[in-house]
Amino acid sequence: MSSVLDFQVRYSETDQMGRAHHRHYLVWFELGRTALMKECGVSYAELERSGTWLPVSRVEVEYSAPVKYDDPLRLYTQVERVRSREVVFGYRLVDEEKTTIATGRTCLVCTDVEGRTRRLPVDLREALENVAV
Amino acid sequence: MSSVLDFQVRYSETDQMGRAHHRHYLVWFELGRTALMKECGVSYAELERSGTWLPVSRVEVEYSAPVKYDDPLRLYTQVERVRSREVVFGYRLVDEEKTTIATGRTCLVCTDVEGRTRRLPVDLREALENVAV
Amino acid sequence: MSSVLDFQVRYSETDQMGRAHHRHYLVWFELGRTALMKECGVSYAELERSGTWLPVSRVEVEYSAPVKYDDPLRLYTQVERVRSREVVFGYRLVDEEKTTIATGRTCLVCTDVEGRTRRLPVDLREALENVAV
Amino acid sequence: MSSVLDFQVRYSETDQMGRAHHRHYLVWFELGRTALMKECGVSYAELERSGTWLPVSRVEVEYSAPVKYDDPLRLYTQVERVRSREVVFGYRLVDEEKTTIATGRTCLVCTDVEGRTRRLPVDLREALENVAV
Repeated sequence: MSSVLDFQVRYSETDQMGRAHHRHYLVWFELGRTALMKECGVSYAELERSGTWLPVSRVEVEYSAPVKYDDPLRLYTQVERVRSREVVFGYRLVDEEKTTIATGRTCLVCTDVEGRTRRLPVDLREALENVAV
Repeated sequence: MSSVLDFQVRYSETDQMGRAHHRHYLVWFELGRTALMKECGVSYAELERSGTWLPVSRVEVEYSAPVKYDDPLRLYTQVERVRSREVVFGYRLVDEEKTTIATGRTCLVCTDVEGRTRRLPVDLREALENVAV
Repeated sequence: MSSVLDFQVRYSETDQMGRAHHRHYLVWFELGRTALMKECGVSYAELERSGTWLPVSRVEVEYSAPVKYDDPLRLYTQVERVRSREVVFGYRLVDEEKTTIATGRTCLVCTDVEGRTRRLPVDLREALENVAV
Repeated sequence: MSSVLDFQVRYSETDQMGRAHHRHYLVWFELGRTALMKECGVSYAELERSGTWLPVSRVEVEYSAPVKYDDPLRLYTQVERVRSREVVFGYRLVDEEKTTIATGRTCLVCTDVEGRTRRLPVDLREALENVAV
């Protein structure tokens, strides 16, 4: 399963090259994976309130084509892998012509509020495994 | 007393007009007032750890001239007013030729970690009053 | 006329107080006024491409209540005043219970791409005057 | 050669986990490589003004330990590889105890202002090759 998120580049996300600055893709990926989690019935806001954190332990982004202010973008997010203590999400960002703008991957580890790694809660793990590719 | 902070515009702070986006001035003002507090012997990091928060309740910024990537800037920060539960900081940002780039003012209220307003800790209040203009 | 924009607080917009950092309200206001302009038939992206810029010359924000990650917000944006070379937008941000979260005002000046002030293009001025409060 | 940059985590860089949000590491890496370039006699600001752009085509970051507001950090930046049309920088971020906080790598391609790839200017290429590891 692939979650689909549509959005537009904000003015504040541009830089002096006239394109979205590369750091914002990490923000968009975050929107993508939390949207995917919501579709699986998991609210990341509630997850944190219940004491489970999913900090990012690794990111990779391949930037293929620049995007400009106001450009409509579509982000596809997938669960690539679920392990006992981590989950890997994969991303593909495309423009209106379906041209690939960027692809990426983030690894998130499960921790408690002190930052100690712990197993993914069973519900979360099952929800993610159900949609893993 | 005026605290002086020198810094340069980061690339990531530019927008497609080729100047620093206006939201970043609020970040710079935050750097200015925490630097001023440090000069008064108050670490804002420690203040928060001890349960005292100073969220921003009001901001005003007057933008006089644009600034570009890598421009060296100097920020003057002052304590304009201290009350039992709030403090007002004033800012003046200048470039290398001492031209005023922006002026601003932020009001911060003192709260506990639940966001309930409370009196400024005595030490903090005295430190700020000592340097108020 | 008031333009209405619904959105949610992004995780990346939070700070260690667990609330949206105050600088992001300026980003949201920017979303609000460009949405209002679109409703008036004016694309700010096209406006810039045609050589007309609207940099921010002044902002004021009054923060009334904190907002948290994922909170659904509604932003009302109005044209408060149109002059030959500037336009003032007013903003009111509310939460789901219609509680006011923040109010603000931004003044934008019309410039060419060199930053020299110029008159608002006639079409833009008329479009904004038509919806001014 | 390794360029060394010391800085502290800004309050605005924290998120509700109480640590620096992962996107900001890309901003710090950008500070690191432009500082390294300056040490080589190359101003990235001037490079862009002369029509040479170095957009990021790929990033990888490995996050090893969280960092908090005001933490003093040291960033080591190296040129890992120079090719005719691209340059790869490597990064290692450490805290005061020299504990590795993060490592990363960014690939930048050389383009003109239209975004077409082109050869690195000879001066830039030689300057970077001189310090490559």
